[in-house]
Amino acid sequence: MIKDPFIASKEKLDPNNFALANCIRALSIDAVNAANSGHPGAPMGMADAATILYRKHLTFDAAMPDWPDRDRFVLSNGHASMLLYSLLHLTGVEDMTMDQIRNFRQWGSITAGHPEYGHAKGIETTTGPLGQGLATAVGMAMSERLLAEEFPGLVDHHTYVMLGDGCLEEGIGQEAISLAGHLGLGKLILLYDDNDITIDGPTSVSFSENVPARLAACGWHVQSCDGHNPLALDAAITAAKAETGMPSLIAMKTIIGFGSPNRAGTASAHGAPLGEEEGAAAKAALGWSYAPFEIPADLSKKWRDIGAKGRDMRTAWETKLAEHPQAVEFMRRQSGILPEGYDAAVAKARKQLFAAPAKVATRKASQMALDALAGSLPELVGGSADLTGSNLTRVEAVDSQYSRDKPGRYIGYGVREFGMAAAMNGLVLHGGFIPYGGTFLVFSDYARNGIRLSALMEIGTIYVMTHDSIGLGEDGPTHQPIEHLASLRAIPNLNVFRPGDAMETLECWDIAIRNRNRPSLMALSRQGVPQLRLEESDENLSAKGAYILRSYGSSRDITLIATGTELSLAVEAAEALQAEGLGVVVVSMPCWELFDAQPKNYRDKILGTAPRIAIEAASKFGWTRYVASEEDIIGMDGFGASAPAERLYQEFGITKQAVVDRAKRLLEA
Amino acid sequence: MIKDPFIASKEKLDPNNFALANCIRALSIDAVNAANSGHPGAPMGMADAATILYRKHLTFDAAMPDWPDRDRFVLSNGHASMLLYSLLHLTGVEDMTMDQIRNFRQWGSITAGHPEYGHAKGIETTTGPLGQGLATAVGMAMSERLLAEEFPGLVDHHTYVMLGDGCLEEGIGQEAISLAGHLGLGKLILLYDDNDITIDGPTSVSFSENVPARLAACGWHVQSCDGHNPLALDAAITAAKAETGMPSLIAMKTIIGFGSPNRAGTASAHGAPLGEEEGAAAKAALGWSYAPFEIPADLSKKWRDIGAKGRDMRTAWETKLAEHPQAVEFMRRQSGILPEGYDAAVAKARKQLFAAPAKVATRKASQMALDALAGSLPELVGGSADLTGSNLTRVEAVDSQYSRDKPGRYIGYGVREFGMAAAMNGLVLHGGFIPYGGTFLVFSDYARNGIRLSALMEIGTIYVMTHDSIGLGEDGPTHQPIEHLASLRAIPNLNVFRPGDAMETLECWDIAIRNRNRPSLMALSRQGVPQLRLEESDENLSAKGAYILRSYGSSRDITLIATGTELSLAVEAAEALQAEGLGVVVVSMPCWELFDAQPKNYRDKILGTAPRIAIEAASKFGWTRYVASEEDIIGMDGFGASAPAERLYQEFGITKQAVVDRAKRLLEA
Repeated sequence: MIKDPFIASKEKLDPNNFALANCIRALSIDAVNAANSGHPGAPMGMADAATILYRKHLTFDAAMPDWPDRDRFVLSNGHASMLLYSLLHLTGVEDMTMDQIRNFRQWGSITAGHPEYGHAKGIETTTGPLGQGLATAVGMAMSERLLAEEFPGLVDHHTYVMLGDGCLEEGIGQEAISLAGHLGLGKLILLYDDNDITIDGPTSVSFSENVPARLAACGWHVQSCDGHNPLALDAAITAAKAETGMPSLIAMKTIIGFGSPNRAGTASAHGAPLGEEEGAAAKAALGWSYAPFEIPADLSKKWRDIGAKGRDMRTAWETKLAEHPQAVEFMRRQSGILPEGYDAAVAKARKQLFAAPAKVATRKASQMALDALAGSLPELVGGSADLTGSNLTRVEAVDSQYSRDKPGRYIGYGVREFGMAAAMNGLVLHGGFIPYGGTFLVFSDYARNGIRLSALMEIGTIYVMTHDSIGLGEDGPTHQPIEHLASLRAIPNLNVFRPGDAMETLECWDIAIRNRNRPSLMALSRQGVPQLRLEESDENLSAKGAYILRSYGSSRDITLIATGTELSLAVEAAEALQAEGLGVVVVSMPCWELFDAQPKNYRDKILGTAPRIAIEAASKFGWTRYVASEEDIIGMDGFGASAPAERLYQEFGITKQAVVDRAKRLLEA
Repeated sequence: MIKDPFIASKEKLDPNNFALANCIRALSIDAVNAANSGHPGAPMGMADAATILYRKHLTFDAAMPDWPDRDRFVLSNGHASMLLYSLLHLTGVEDMTMDQIRNFRQWGSITAGHPEYGHAKGIETTTGPLGQGLATAVGMAMSERLLAEEFPGLVDHHTYVMLGDGCLEEGIGQEAISLAGHLGLGKLILLYDDNDITIDGPTSVSFSENVPARLAACGWHVQSCDGHNPLALDAAITAAKAETGMPSLIAMKTIIGFGSPNRAGTASAHGAPLGEEEGAAAKAALGWSYAPFEIPADLSKKWRDIGAKGRDMRTAWETKLAEHPQAVEFMRRQSGILPEGYDAAVAKARKQLFAAPAKVATRKASQMALDALAGSLPELVGGSADLTGSNLTRVEAVDSQYSRDKPGRYIGYGVREFGMAAAMNGLVLHGGFIPYGGTFLVFSDYARNGIRLSALMEIGTIYVMTHDSIGLGEDGPTHQPIEHLASLRAIPNLNVFRPGDAMETLECWDIAIRNRNRPSLMALSRQGVPQLRLEESDENLSAKGAYILRSYGSSRDITLIATGTELSLAVEAAEALQAEGLGVVVVSMPCWELFDAQPKNYRDKILGTAPRIAIEAASKFGWTRYVASEEDIIGMDGFGASAPAERLYQEFGITKQAVVDRAKRLLEA
């Protein structure tokens, strides 16, 4: 049946591997055809490599695909999702039934167009936005190394990444490559699907660099091999594992859509179903004679055996764990349960702030909070995109630099915000850590899709974003966030915190640390603010997103809602209005998302029925959720400017007087 | 006075260059000290190189710093702004007075913390967000090559970029490097300030790659030299110019804060004023004995001569232009005035659509519009981040592939959205082109800060963003934009268009093309929509941002506001409501920003006083600007899912019935 001499020659190299790989190819053809959408080319091209990886190298137990010391496998070119689903199904991962494969890309299935974290065990991260799988895998490899340092004898696994040209063209790919090379992550191994094809045609339309040379320049161990030759692949992976001081690249020369007589090696194999006719022709060429979605028993058995291959290693590890002196702590870290001392640390920090109120920038308050809490949280791993002294992300307990020689709890991510975001996602996904990382709020733009993936995956990555308004002053409009709060609040499932004083900053940190199912973003000021929360209490008032900070007068003629550095401005305006005989309530709203999640009666009580004014030194966009009209927002209409902060507040009309004027206008009406 | 033997040895190499460079160092010290904020280290470290560049190589005329065939100089590490301001002042650019230097970083000055395009001639682009200056310069170099092809004899200049480690760590830097190498942009020359220092300390904390080797792997000509040796720098720039087939890197080993006895070579020289004492010590070490902001007459004269050096070349070019057969067209292209045939092309396309209404996806309508207009617009340059067949950005008149061998009007940007955005900004800034480039709307995230810079610079870059909602279907939540429309609308000075049918798509393209002072972003559908605009008229109704598409019944009981693919859904709902005896107005709102710019009486008329419902298959965030409450928005509350589009609309409740139900509820109340 095999007519193509190329296929025939490949098949002879290792008929067993070839037949097993064809199971992946056949399922990919069938599922994409059934869905009438999807990407058959990459799974067909990478099937041989994936098969040899699972057969010979990947430490994986299909009966427990999430045991802690497993190897991680990340499919960074997520459009090749049928490769991963096929592997999980064939190896026998419980949830990945043939019905799920049949329902590829359908409502309610776990087999989404691109792999979605949480849909099935064995999907280590959500991929599809190119480059991020690789960068997330770098975070996983960093985790492995640090956790191995902390728990000797319990952690020793590899992180394998499959990826295509797109992941290497995206800038974040290079950020990840550079960081991994810098840190010498020797257990990170890339399998690059070097198929010379991109959506717009041959890669030569846009991509002509020497990828191995680029990675070698970044401190990588590099190899090239035939991606359809299982013997060569096996040898390359073996060599990659043997190199422990550098991450490894294996550039596999492959044919996209391998087996498809009329589409293999062309862009037409990439993103459209082969269809019945070409699918049948491909199966014929591959010598595959089974019905759609049929895997013959012998191959099915072999794949199940591959899935069971890691069982002994897993049980041996469990035995080792049971006898390990750090077993309890290790499992606590894996579970994400906070340590015993944490509550007391929070309580103590609260007490101290009430005893000695702090008039500091909220970035400084953030550092104080971290200082107070980090000692009790060994899972906390910090870092900054080269703005440590500005972000104030380094504290005594999180001070050991993560270096090539010794992994530590503080990571110098370099000027790589996007790479940082994705690596932090990897730190969470790997298990064992709560990562936070800093940059300027305006550069959340660079990291934005990584933040989005934290939210989509529902994981508790923490973003520390300082210099959160025109209040940063002289650096000017390129560095002044304006629309960033609005645009971040618009991301579903992300808690955006903008605390107004040191106490709120502590509270927001506490919420962020406890919330392991939702990312948090802290917007923090460069400039100082007074501590407004002075009444001692044990309740985390920020946890409801908004609360009444202060009431002035017996009536409630007007409500001022503010966040962050403008909270003290609201208090000043309220005092001025009270002096004129008005009753004013000041609502602090450090987190919209948490407030919106409160019951209606709470929200109604906080917002009240009196006219409302919102005050925030940022775009007005979105505030009409809480106030009646755009005119009731004291904020920014355009970009900032370069000047001292006080001048900017004056020039842009974010002043006590502006609040007072608007309040009077509202009450006149 | 020079005690430091290092400085002394450098000085001996070329005392003239050294003295001229010290003018830059002194001004940088003084201005940063006066502002009490800023970055003295980089200007002091790069002063020698900048001086030799301006003295010996840069084709520049201070009397007319914006003449078309000048060399471009981009300071990608924008925090070194005092380097650029010093150069413009010293060479005699009119606006850059000593008063401006004294007012560095102050309200109303043109000397912002980071260089702002438009503040002074000679500032070729806004920089500060790292990596983007480099990527924008790549766009400029692409422009030069294409324009030289179109206008033989009129265009022949270099693009020089200064940049630091940060620009090379940012992923966008690699995107730009890879693209420039791929296209063989031989007139692009990078001067890399390789000073071994980053904000967090020595670069070794986060960056240890072999930069020249990385760039060589990407097809660059690379050199290394002592960045304080004018002879070596001169030779290196000369060699870089001689290499015309590849872009060139000159890695200059420099000392940050060169001259500062106690801070040179350390991170403390980077981002804080030297202060009076250290500033004085630095001047002493450099042998500089003048008062703050004083430039001695002999050096001032020499710098003015450098500024006048290009005058003859400029006037010779003007003479050549005057005699050139394409002079009129060249100057039209430079001016940004649209060609004569353009209006007629628009009118013809309108007529055709009215004559034969098109039921197509708006991405297809976009291609039809481009097809209709591009023939009359030689300045239109297209491209896509490797999604040509999906974005439908390629049309007959914009079909010639921009390649290494021959520059064309269609650019394969590769999977590099951010690099594409910045390169397009460079195409605009260079002059002569109207660029548009495509990707999926969800990946606007990757390009976001580039879009922001288009808006901040007030330049007319056009973003074509297709697959604009859950309507893209099976690719799933990683590919479905949800919060993107809101987050883009929040960017000041950006027109976000979401046309509802083929006619609106044409109209929005027309607005985007005409608007050269504001970027435009087209959000376009994957799925088909009927043409709703059927009544023939010459007026571009989209130009007011929103208008009454249809009125049902004689009363106005309810107003439905919709955009894009949901416009036809609003029409269906209106018909259903009319059938129940209600009067309904359907408002189409393709562009919020244009609508908000209309006079109040127009806005009041369009919005009306009846209850309003907004319909958009995207995050509800921000729609309370136009409707009374969140409940009046038919939209998305969370992320999407992987399934056929129709199913998703049903499951997420974006249906005719949902609109009808809400309308009835509102009218009951």
